Amino acid sequence: MGGARSKDGLEALKERLLAGDTRALARAISLVEGGGEAGRQMTQLTFTHAGSAFVVGVTGIPGAGKSTLVDGLATLYRKADERVGVVAVDPSSAFSGGALLGDRIRMQRHTSDPGVFIRSMATRQHLGGLAVATPAVVDLIDAAGHQRILIETVGVGQDEIEVIEMADTVVVAMVPGLGDDVQAIKAGILEVADIFVINKSDHEGADRLHQELENLRGLVEHPKGEWVSPIVRTVATTGEGIEELRAAIEQHAADPRNRPRRQERLRRAWARRLRELIDEGLWSRLLEAMPLAQEMDGLVAEIAGRRRDPFSVAESILRRVRLKAGK
Amino acid sequence: MGGARSKDGLEALKERLLAGDTRALARAISLVEGGGEAGRQMTQLTFTHAGSAFVVGVTGIPGAGKSTLVDGLATLYRKADERVGVVAVDPSSAFSGGALLGDRIRMQRHTSDPGVFIRSMATRQHLGGLAVATPAVVDLIDAAGHQRILIETVGVGQDEIEVIEMADTVVVAMVPGLGDDVQAIKAGILEVADIFVINKSDHEGADRLHQELENLRGLVEHPKGEWVSPIVRTVATTGEGIEELRAAIEQHAADPRNRPRRQERLRRAWARRLRELIDEGLWSRLLEAMPLAQEMDGLVAEIAGRRRDPFSVAESILRRVRLKAGK
Repeated sequence: MGGARSKDGLEALKERLLAGDTRALARAISLVEGGGEAGRQMTQLTFTHAGSAFVVGVTGIPGAGKSTLVDGLATLYRKADERVGVVAVDPSSAFSGGALLGDRIRMQRHTSDPGVFIRSMATRQHLGGLAVATPAVVDLIDAAGHQRILIETVGVGQDEIEVIEMADTVVVAMVPGLGDDVQAIKAGILEVADIFVINKSDHEGADRLHQELENLRGLVEHPKGEWVSPIVRTVATTGEGIEELRAAIEQHAADPRNRPRRQERLRRAWARRLRELIDEGLWSRLLEAMPLAQEMDGLVAEIAGRRRDPFSVAESILRRVRLKAGK
Repeated sequence: MGGARSKDGLEALKERLLAGDTRALARAISLVEGGGEAGRQMTQLTFTHAGSAFVVGVTGIPGAGKSTLVDGLATLYRKADERVGVVAVDPSSAFSGGALLGDRIRMQRHTSDPGVFIRSMATRQHLGGLAVATPAVVDLIDAAGHQRILIETVGVGQDEIEVIEMADTVVVAMVPGLGDDVQAIKAGILEVADIFVINKSDHEGADRLHQELENLRGLVEHPKGEWVSPIVRTVATTGEGIEELRAAIEQHAADPRNRPRRQERLRRAWARRLRELIDEGLWSRLLEAMPLAQEMDGLVAEIAGRRRDPFSVAESILRRVRLKAGK
């Protein structure tokens, strides 16, 4: 099927995707995940058609029940006849390069519903990583006409934080009864959480966790009139509290006070991405101008052997470069 | 104390650090974490003096008891009169920029022992992040003469994986009785684990976890004669199994079959770092050659507003660049 990778083929694929064709969407995502030139062109072709979906990020440690929460929200959105996209960022794949849990056992009750599009992302499948591939995939699902997109991720690493920062509303899920390390994560996560969920809130310790969260929230200075992240209690497996969570997300989305913060997040993310693309371009130019690929192995061996430091090596290369710019 | 930042001041600080002076070490680390020119020079000055410590990475999800395991290992190494360094990468700080748990409540019984140097790292304190700052800090502790360095991290994100890949031996800690998400992480972590620990192995479900780990390990193809990661059971709070863990680490370290893999990890890490340094240099050159800083805001706004795609914007900038290289 090399045809789809030609310029005309990509145009045709784009048109089908914009018309909401699920197979075209899946195909386009595979191209983007592949990381090659066709994926890049696909992202470029669809970029200005995305940006209208409402994106909810759901993050939390393993075991917090994020998949079940996402499943519950998807069900409510479907009842309102909204087209839903789900992107599950799967840390299981961090080392193996494949989504082990995968789409199959996730959200099985939605698999026969064409109004729900589900995709698992593996962490390491792509140069530039998750932080590049996930927003590109979200954009494709958006351009294909899904009004609600749910991103599920484990909010620990830098990449995951960058991914979740692309969301319009960030939900941080917690569960009662875990140890001290968890308390530590909680303490730090305040800055990114728009809404807190205490899932498995029928378990012992839910009241204490609720109290702790309120205390933590009190530590942060809230300028007068700023959004104060609500705490929603759920039992995702029975559906308890999911309607309240949906309502809290609506409130956060509709509240005009939250717009500047969201725009600042977006601006930061796109500035970073633009810089990365320029870096990649400059690197390609350097490789064209200099037989660096051949030298790299020897230089890296000198560094790894502690004979030269990486700064000196980088400087010795940069000293050979002349860079000029026109208007 | 601007004096220490002058060239002579840094030389003097380096000499004290190489002589094993703990205060000089703490000072040098602060400079490196600060991310400025003095930190860069400090890294450069000490680089060829590092590389002789044996570095153990301990990773696992929150609640796996990593701190207690690290504490137990540090105690054993101290009994053998080895100087120990501990670097705790603290995910609590991912959002807040400060180590909330911090050095104070970590490993309290070692605080009066000058043979143990403990440092917590916050994820976001530094441009380039954890993946750059942590190895630099480990190198400083190494150059100051600590023979054993323990890095504790939550092994989920890309940054954390890059950090842990710098270690000579990677220990992955698990606990029985957690949910499905955890199983998923386990499944993916096989490629990086040199040794598995089942901590809290007196808890229910330890046998099942042990069996599952053996099964998973069986799924990976082990070329004949390759190291097969052992599974060590511990109860870190009572010290049970810590001696066995220490012995497993020794075995992994001493086994000549493991050298190629370790060297390949190191080579990859340094190649990545060298590329980053060159990228930074090229970016600075670009900013000198072009009034890009002034243009960036407008360009980013066009991208965030979906009026232009980031690839086209990057291309329009790169088209204005001429890059030449000499010998």
